[in-house]
Amino acid sequence: MSFAATIVTLYPEMFPGHLGHSLAGRGLAEGAWSLQTVHLRQFGHGKHRAVDDTPAGGGAGMVLRPDCLAAAIDSADLHNEMPRLLMSPRGKPLTQGFVRELAAGPGALIVCGRFEGVDERVIEARNLIEVSVGDYILSGGEAAALTLLDAVIRLLPGVMGNEESGTEESFETGLLEHPHYTKPSEWEGLAVPDILKSGNHAAIDAWRRREAEKLTADRRPDLLPGTDLDHTE
Amino acid sequence: MSFAATIVTLYPEMFPGHLGHSLAGRGLAEGAWSLQTVHLRQFGHGKHRAVDDTPAGGGAGMVLRPDCLAAAIDSADLHNEMPRLLMSPRGKPLTQGFVRELAAGPGALIVCGRFEGVDERVIEARNLIEVSVGDYILSGGEAAALTLLDAVIRLLPGVMGNEESGTEESFETGLLEHPHYTKPSEWEGLAVPDILKSGNHAAIDAWRRREAEKLTADRRPDLLPGTDLDHTE
Repeated sequence: MSFAATIVTLYPEMFPGHLGHSLAGRGLAEGAWSLQTVHLRQFGHGKHRAVDDTPAGGGAGMVLRPDCLAAAIDSADLHNEMPRLLMSPRGKPLTQGFVRELAAGPGALIVCGRFEGVDERVIEARNLIEVSVGDYILSGGEAAALTLLDAVIRLLPGVMGNEESGTEESFETGLLEHPHYTKPSEWEGLAVPDILKSGNHAAIDAWRRREAEKLTADRRPDLLPGTDLDHTE
Repeated sequence: MSFAATIVTLYPEMFPGHLGHSLAGRGLAEGAWSLQTVHLRQFGHGKHRAVDDTPAGGGAGMVLRPDCLAAAIDSADLHNEMPRLLMSPRGKPLTQGFVRELAAGPGALIVCGRFEGVDERVIEARNLIEVSVGDYILSGGEAAALTLLDAVIRLLPGVMGNEESGTEESFETGLLEHPHYTKPSEWEGLAVPDILKSGNHAAIDAWRRREAEKLTADRRPDLLPGTDLDHTE
């Protein structure tokens, strides 16, 4: 079974974007995943096919209308069990656990927000799960959707080459990655640490673990076990 | 002055990707930002132009060689004050503050990692700042670079339309956005909250603030002031 991505967007031309190349592009061509875009503009009102209007109660920006967005969502041919996501900085932060969950499922409907926001009623009425890729503001949900899909697609059967297969496991220790070294053994006067040339695998493992713990404590103390805001699942 | 993005990548064909469309695409065409890609493969060794090798000390995956990557970086024509970023899940989480800092500067060199990782020596020797767009694994740094650039480009002078100008400010309260509503006033039996139709702007502001606080407490207690791991800057 192939992962079916359905994107509701004002910019269908943004897809597949970078996902049309490399491993994801090959996976798309070979059917490991499929992509369908629903052009939100087709569900707009009037001569200009408007899909947004001013915020109730006043304020800056424009808000996506619930009727247009619901019509676009309802036009998509979805499995019942397919999650419906709304890419939004208000959402729950995307985690590797949720990425894995999506990759194990039949696909997803992904709504790309634009403007100031989306009418709250359509979020409730269509059970949209708000997902955030990070604490920064993007031009719209399209960049976020492409990021989420990139993370999901590399986990689909037949997509990822062996060369990248180790990455997943090392992230799952809950620590940041230890430093990596490769050839040449000396470069610009900097040598690969002796321990890595010792052949003592137990000592190498211990060194890597220590380095990963130091790095995590330095950069991401929130990831360390026992903190209140453990980001792992 | 225009923002100059220089990307070191094995997949130059992935750029500008979705940034070739909509506001970012117009900004690129009009010179609000520029894009240069450095094809890492050109700096590889041997017949196959290899840029990676096995990890010192053993283990899964392949590591980007320091000599190839340094040669690619050194080939780029950079302002001295231009930051050099390495997109990596080990990096400091990207924040809107860092996005603003980048957008106010002359540009950035962005290295897209692939494989298991990058030789630590080149990170040190070339002062690469490791940046993460989120706690999930992407197929490579390209998707992360496109996400970071999307966030930066929308802040450049002349890029963002007025329609989106409100978003920035509302994020800067440090709270998630309050719910939005627009026309129609009633939809599928769901009405816009009366308070938003009251014309009482002080009451509307207070309601929005309360809703934003409730939402933040529910979804992102880590963002609330006074927590140890305040993500705002």
